[in-house]
Amino acid sequence: MKRGEFTLIDSIAALFAAVPHNGFEPIGDDCTVLDVGNDEVLVISTDMLVEDVHFLRSASSAEEVGHKSLMVNLSDVAAMGALPVATLLSIALPHDAQGEWVDGFMRSYADASRSYGVALVGGDTTAAKDKIAINVVAIGRMQRKNVKRRSAARVGDVVCVTGMLGISSKGLVDIMFGDLETEAAKAHRLAQARVDEGQWLGMRSEVHAMMDISDGVASDIRHIMAQSRVGAELDISLIPTDFDLRYALSGGEDYELLLTVEESSVEALIEDFSARFGAKLTPIGRIIEGNALRWVERGAPIELDLQGFRHF
Amino acid sequence: MKRGEFTLIDSIAALFAAVPHNGFEPIGDDCTVLDVGNDEVLVISTDMLVEDVHFLRSASSAEEVGHKSLMVNLSDVAAMGALPVATLLSIALPHDAQGEWVDGFMRSYADASRSYGVALVGGDTTAAKDKIAINVVAIGRMQRKNVKRRSAARVGDVVCVTGMLGISSKGLVDIMFGDLETEAAKAHRLAQARVDEGQWLGMRSEVHAMMDISDGVASDIRHIMAQSRVGAELDISLIPTDFDLRYALSGGEDYELLLTVEESSVEALIEDFSARFGAKLTPIGRIIEGNALRWVERGAPIELDLQGFRHF
Repeated sequence: MKRGEFTLIDSIAALFAAVPHNGFEPIGDDCTVLDVGNDEVLVISTDMLVEDVHFLRSASSAEEVGHKSLMVNLSDVAAMGALPVATLLSIALPHDAQGEWVDGFMRSYADASRSYGVALVGGDTTAAKDKIAINVVAIGRMQRKNVKRRSAARVGDVVCVTGMLGISSKGLVDIMFGDLETEAAKAHRLAQARVDEGQWLGMRSEVHAMMDISDGVASDIRHIMAQSRVGAELDISLIPTDFDLRYALSGGEDYELLLTVEESSVEALIEDFSARFGAKLTPIGRIIEGNALRWVERGAPIELDLQGFRHF
Repeated sequence: MKRGEFTLIDSIAALFAAVPHNGFEPIGDDCTVLDVGNDEVLVISTDMLVEDVHFLRSASSAEEVGHKSLMVNLSDVAAMGALPVATLLSIALPHDAQGEWVDGFMRSYADASRSYGVALVGGDTTAAKDKIAINVVAIGRMQRKNVKRRSAARVGDVVCVTGMLGISSKGLVDIMFGDLETEAAKAHRLAQARVDEGQWLGMRSEVHAMMDISDGVASDIRHIMAQSRVGAELDISLIPTDFDLRYALSGGEDYELLLTVEESSVEALIEDFSARFGAKLTPIGRIIEGNALRWVERGAPIELDLQGFRHF
């Protein structure tokens, strides 16, 4: 579970305190992790998308919703360092979405599944009263030793992000103002999960903690801090973006990866990443003692009150 | 996937024809099955419940919805013969369900999880515009050799059901008419998945095909027929029920098990089942050649046009 639902999650954890874990790791990462023998684990994530909360039928095509439904989950699997192998899809359809809409949705979901080599292995379809609801479960497989957790950050680690931040939320704003064909608008509609990058980073032991950026760095870094019981100092002058800093720090759905790296290895990792993917891995700060998030600009402390996008 | 969604499922199967299965079995059973090594498999099911389609907030308490959300999925896992080990829960909550309602739902979901020893290992909570949507994923674990599939029925098998049929749908009708405290109404609210029975039957090699009864025998037997490419002859005089036959044949949510058994072993199996569970395993017909469903009464052919409950 994620986003701003800490209170509900705390009360759920209390309710389940007496229930055995049956080989699963406790909640707290992008995915749950299950030992399956032969030094392998499955990682499993689930996300629900609801009409008029996560998308508007008037603003997003069925194809875009299909693409996004898959990507949010593949991104969670990638963030553990796993290879996504399969999804299960549940979809509740009101009467006026049962023809063309669901065809477009499924075509796009299948196209994206094919391009990532991910099977559809189960699901449920049902009627809904008036709003579409979609739930996707993604399953990944990987070597246990490569699993990257939010809880593995160490004091002294360099905080890095993949790619460029903010383009997806800039695109969302463009779309809201009717500019449907800007580069950012297209990027928002067709955001790709960093599946190859996640697996590659998973195999590097100098990468300690990792997660995907779904709500913006300013919000998501707090999950690593909470799980690892550390603080962080981030430098706004280092954030890789072509847009307003607010988009880059607080905008959702970039599906880039946020990771912490052993300081002595970070330069070599950045070079190897660039050689392998032709893309940037950018240091944006470091893990510090304590539990505070400090913002600096070229090393000098600044005040910043930024929140990631929250559903609650 | 299940219920009356055959057309959508066919078109989905075509869209995914070129995608590798990655070790999963093709769609067609209560659960998808994944090899995890050491002769073990995971079985995974998912079900979505939507307000005003699967439940009314005015007629069902939050506790009842929490109980039912878990049971529909545990029943799918039990139908494969597996031990349920974990669930993932996604829930979309409109503003007016975020306090007392969700507390009652979670308390009941947790109580039932505890009584079956099932962990809650992940999920998603989000806002909804006005209707509650719930998606549960259940994961079971078992020996590969014990997996019971819908496709394993053989000509000559005896068709059997566990327990008594129709009480849940009789209870639903009682509730609709305001009779909230009848025995059937209570049974409807607190239906229990046949988890121990499913595992026990899973270990018996004379049990060939198995599934849970979620839409009524008259509808569900057709899944075994389609997957096994066989016909069936069912005798209405043998259906174990205390109520109108329509409830027993077409009513949903009994969560009993429907299975086909090697003819020579069926008497011993019924005896052992009764000794182990103090409950009935009842022969109701047999698997025949062809693809037709024939109804008989004390052996004499009758005409019957009964449909299970369908959402589409």
